[in-house]
Amino acid sequence: MAASSSSSFTLPQWQATGQAKREEILRLLPPEWRIDSVPTPQALRNVTHYSAQFLTTEERDITETLSAAALLGKLSRGELTALQVTKAFCHRATIAHQLTNCLSEVNFTPALSDAEALDAAYDREGKVVGPLHGLPVSLKDQFRVRDTETSVGYVGWLGKKETTESESWIVQQLRKLGAIVFVKTNVPTSLMAIETNNNIVGYTLNAANRLLSSGGSSGGEGALIAAGGSIIGLGSDVGASIRLPSGFNGIVGLRPSHGRLPYLGVANSMLGHQTLESVIGPMGRNIADLRLFVRAILGVEPWKADPKVLTLPWRDSEELKARQKIASKKLTFGVLRDDGVVTPHPPVGRVVEEAAQKLTAHGYEVIEWEPPAHSEAFEIAWAAFTADAGRDIHNQLSLSGEVPVPELAAVYGETFGHLPPKTVNNLWDSQRRRDEFQISYLRYWESTCARTSNGEAVDAIIVPVAPTVGYERGKGLYPGYTAAYTVLDYSVAVVRAGKADAAKDLPYQEFKAQSDFDAMIHAQCMYFPAHSSLCRPFSFRTLMLIQYSGR
Amino acid sequence: MAASSSSSFTLPQWQATGQAKREEILRLLPPEWRIDSVPTPQALRNVTHYSAQFLTTEERDITETLSAAALLGKLSRGELTALQVTKAFCHRATIAHQLTNCLSEVNFTPALSDAEALDAAYDREGKVVGPLHGLPVSLKDQFRVRDTETSVGYVGWLGKKETTESESWIVQQLRKLGAIVFVKTNVPTSLMAIETNNNIVGYTLNAANRLLSSGGSSGGEGALIAAGGSIIGLGSDVGASIRLPSGFNGIVGLRPSHGRLPYLGVANSMLGHQTLESVIGPMGRNIADLRLFVRAILGVEPWKADPKVLTLPWRDSEELKARQKIASKKLTFGVLRDDGVVTPHPPVGRVVEEAAQKLTAHGYEVIEWEPPAHSEAFEIAWAAFTADAGRDIHNQLSLSGEVPVPELAAVYGETFGHLPPKTVNNLWDSQRRRDEFQISYLRYWESTCARTSNGEAVDAIIVPVAPTVGYERGKGLYPGYTAAYTVLDYSVAVVRAGKADAAKDLPYQEFKAQSDFDAMIHAQCMYFPAHSSLCRPFSFRTLMLIQYSGR
Repeated sequence: MAASSSSSFTLPQWQATGQAKREEILRLLPPEWRIDSVPTPQALRNVTHYSAQFLTTEERDITETLSAAALLGKLSRGELTALQVTKAFCHRATIAHQLTNCLSEVNFTPALSDAEALDAAYDREGKVVGPLHGLPVSLKDQFRVRDTETSVGYVGWLGKKETTESESWIVQQLRKLGAIVFVKTNVPTSLMAIETNNNIVGYTLNAANRLLSSGGSSGGEGALIAAGGSIIGLGSDVGASIRLPSGFNGIVGLRPSHGRLPYLGVANSMLGHQTLESVIGPMGRNIADLRLFVRAILGVEPWKADPKVLTLPWRDSEELKARQKIASKKLTFGVLRDDGVVTPHPPVGRVVEEAAQKLTAHGYEVIEWEPPAHSEAFEIAWAAFTADAGRDIHNQLSLSGEVPVPELAAVYGETFGHLPPKTVNNLWDSQRRRDEFQISYLRYWESTCARTSNGEAVDAIIVPVAPTVGYERGKGLYPGYTAAYTVLDYSVAVVRAGKADAAKDLPYQEFKAQSDFDAMIHAQCMYFPAHSSLCRPFSFRTLMLIQYSGR
Repeated sequence: MAASSSSSFTLPQWQATGQAKREEILRLLPPEWRIDSVPTPQALRNVTHYSAQFLTTEERDITETLSAAALLGKLSRGELTALQVTKAFCHRATIAHQLTNCLSEVNFTPALSDAEALDAAYDREGKVVGPLHGLPVSLKDQFRVRDTETSVGYVGWLGKKETTESESWIVQQLRKLGAIVFVKTNVPTSLMAIETNNNIVGYTLNAANRLLSSGGSSGGEGALIAAGGSIIGLGSDVGASIRLPSGFNGIVGLRPSHGRLPYLGVANSMLGHQTLESVIGPMGRNIADLRLFVRAILGVEPWKADPKVLTLPWRDSEELKARQKIASKKLTFGVLRDDGVVTPHPPVGRVVEEAAQKLTAHGYEVIEWEPPAHSEAFEIAWAAFTADAGRDIHNQLSLSGEVPVPELAAVYGETFGHLPPKTVNNLWDSQRRRDEFQISYLRYWESTCARTSNGEAVDAIIVPVAPTVGYERGKGLYPGYTAAYTVLDYSVAVVRAGKADAAKDLPYQEFKAQSDFDAMIHAQCMYFPAHSSLCRPFSFRTLMLIQYSGR
């Protein structure tokens, strides 16, 4: 009786566990760095620069450095210490978390002590310990980091701290290269959602517009970097997860093709799934930093530890070829304006068009990209992600008895049984369809040699990251523009191409929905009168993908 | 009544179809090339050189040329015409089929006409049309060739001729390179067996000892090449299929790692299966020819057509590094003597030991290879091959209603339902185990740097192809020595290392079986008294694998 009556006043254990972790994260944010009053999203949407006012001039200069490369230069010349840099980002990350709810692990104490050790080594040796000396790096909560937990958003995975041995291999290497791990960032439970929410940290807001989702699954990483709380970090991507958060938060990201960067010892959902390959990749402020990061990782020869990584170092010769092609204006692009499933909203369509025009104006050739039906790719991706009908996800949820967050339940159901059961033969069928789609897409790509003036197939294609410039909570419906390129396993860079502009991006005069689904997403368009409160006076970024078929 | 009584006197349709195809193959073998009397296997075991007596001197010289490279040299210098070469191999292949039952398609007429066209081009242009000008190439019955059928051993797949468009991409390229497709070779129904038998062509005998199996699934290719009926051909391998037939027939073969050679448009069983990757690879008389062949294929940039192929040309720099290491005696090897599941029979153990000794005598370093348990790899392979409980195979069998041959039924059952059903999660679990096995194996490989005198991990490992030097019909039980390296996706070359020798390969004095399974296979040992009639007076080859972890 007593137990029963008391239980009606206490939280279920999974809620209590989640709450305790959430509070622990806050407790680890030093009070002197926290801001006293956090504006509501309604009162303040864009927080990408909001933290700056609370920082010292030095901290502001450090956290607003234009690139990791520049920061590393100052560190290597002794103009900044690792401690100064780490402190500055810890301070700004603290505020970023208060504003967007982006962190899942706060590692400040060991990070500052690592920074001191690096500074001591620098003083002693007179040089940096490695190419990433003193660079604070944020990591999606999927990378195992010693002395922290790895939840992947599951309450039931909490309670076990990683050790030096269990740390993800790339994290061990980042340390050897001189990087400092100072935070881990929030993810959707299981990673299998395009909004970032779970029963531990909760929902992560978009740093560029807090009325919107940060995207997912690397949503914590996207929001943190966009808010200036980190200069570079690692996400992962199996359908959209580096790309959507990069696009929606206004930063850049790289989804390399499978087999390039080491996944060894990184946690994941649906272990053994390989119909679509999950990959890790950097997210940051500019493309040059992504290059620097990838190059540093390849420099430690990850193929000697991770059997999935190809023995393929950074190839200067390939880079040189690309640079020569750029210099001689021989680079050609395809441009995809509409994937035939969901019509891009007006700002997306305009920015893609402007990007094509700018490239043409700079002397590059741009042709229309009319590939095999992307609807097929989306069906393949859907089949891949629901191949076990959510069994693995529900098994993990049941470890704590937690109820799935709505963003997860939307696909996988509140309980197991929501999705139709599938067989191994169904899975093989999806994989066969994937292979056929890859073949027909490559054939299309190569066929463009008949349409370019240099007689070569296009070098890259320009594709919207998404048909929308973002979405409100619970309205993330279509990752098809990114998922198609996971089905294809292409290398994809998300770059900034322009911003939405309420004055320019008027509703289409004659919009004809391609389907009810298209109509539903079109009705979400934030530039239409019903949603105007969401977009004025702020504009947010529309981004484009550059897709590349090589490795 | 009439139908019923007549049906008791006619073959079931699937048997009639198989028989008709079998007879058609014989009909396409020109009577003037056939031998009148075919010795029984008991009367004549080794037929690798038997055909020679029926050939003209020119034909004998051509078909016994030591290498494809030498043959190509003569063709390019005009010392031989493509027609002469093609005729010679057609003649010898005719006899090889009579002796071993190795062909599934006889393509002599178009091949001879292709040869004439090549000769005309040579006369006109004064040079070869490509690096494989005039080279007859045999293909496993999995490659689609215009105007022929592609059965993969299924009766139900007969009846449809390929076209120029449906031809496998690599076949189209081989033609462009100047090669001549003159035969296709026999396979087990579905390819999923390590003996070559089906309801169409029937059982393929080992050319080196016709009392034994040619192995599988590229058994037709192995027997044809060993009998001198082809100088080079293409097989495929998902567990043993290039390696066992190469080993057992005494030829060489290459199982490249996945992503190097183009599978595009090649037929396969269990489409969409990818837990273990099926790859295509060359089989031939010497390693230099395999290199020549792979190099020619990479030269046509298969990654522009086949999305599974890595953009990775032949790297002269890698070859040079390897050659320098060989020249400076810096190459180091691991040697696996026993995989811990099935003890190698005496001749296999002796030849592996002699190989290690020879390498040491030549100044190379050889260390013992004691890797993670291969039993785990075999369990993973078994789980992968039975992931759908044989559903796909039985679906294909049911197209004609054929009864599976015993070698297939042994694993997949006479009817569907023989194997326990498995779920998608079971499949993912196997794939997770595969990934973990790959990681621990690579860790072991890299750990050998502590045991070599140059401080580098070993360059390659020496492993028996199989615990036996061959097996009688129906006794192919254990492809574990090869399957482990499919689980690992290593590049594997099968090279000749020595022959069994009844005088040397005496029974082990103190054999202790590792399991009942080991005891059963050990009891098959052909050098034990009960089996002595099988081995005397002929000896056959024991081969070794060289495994390499790179691409």
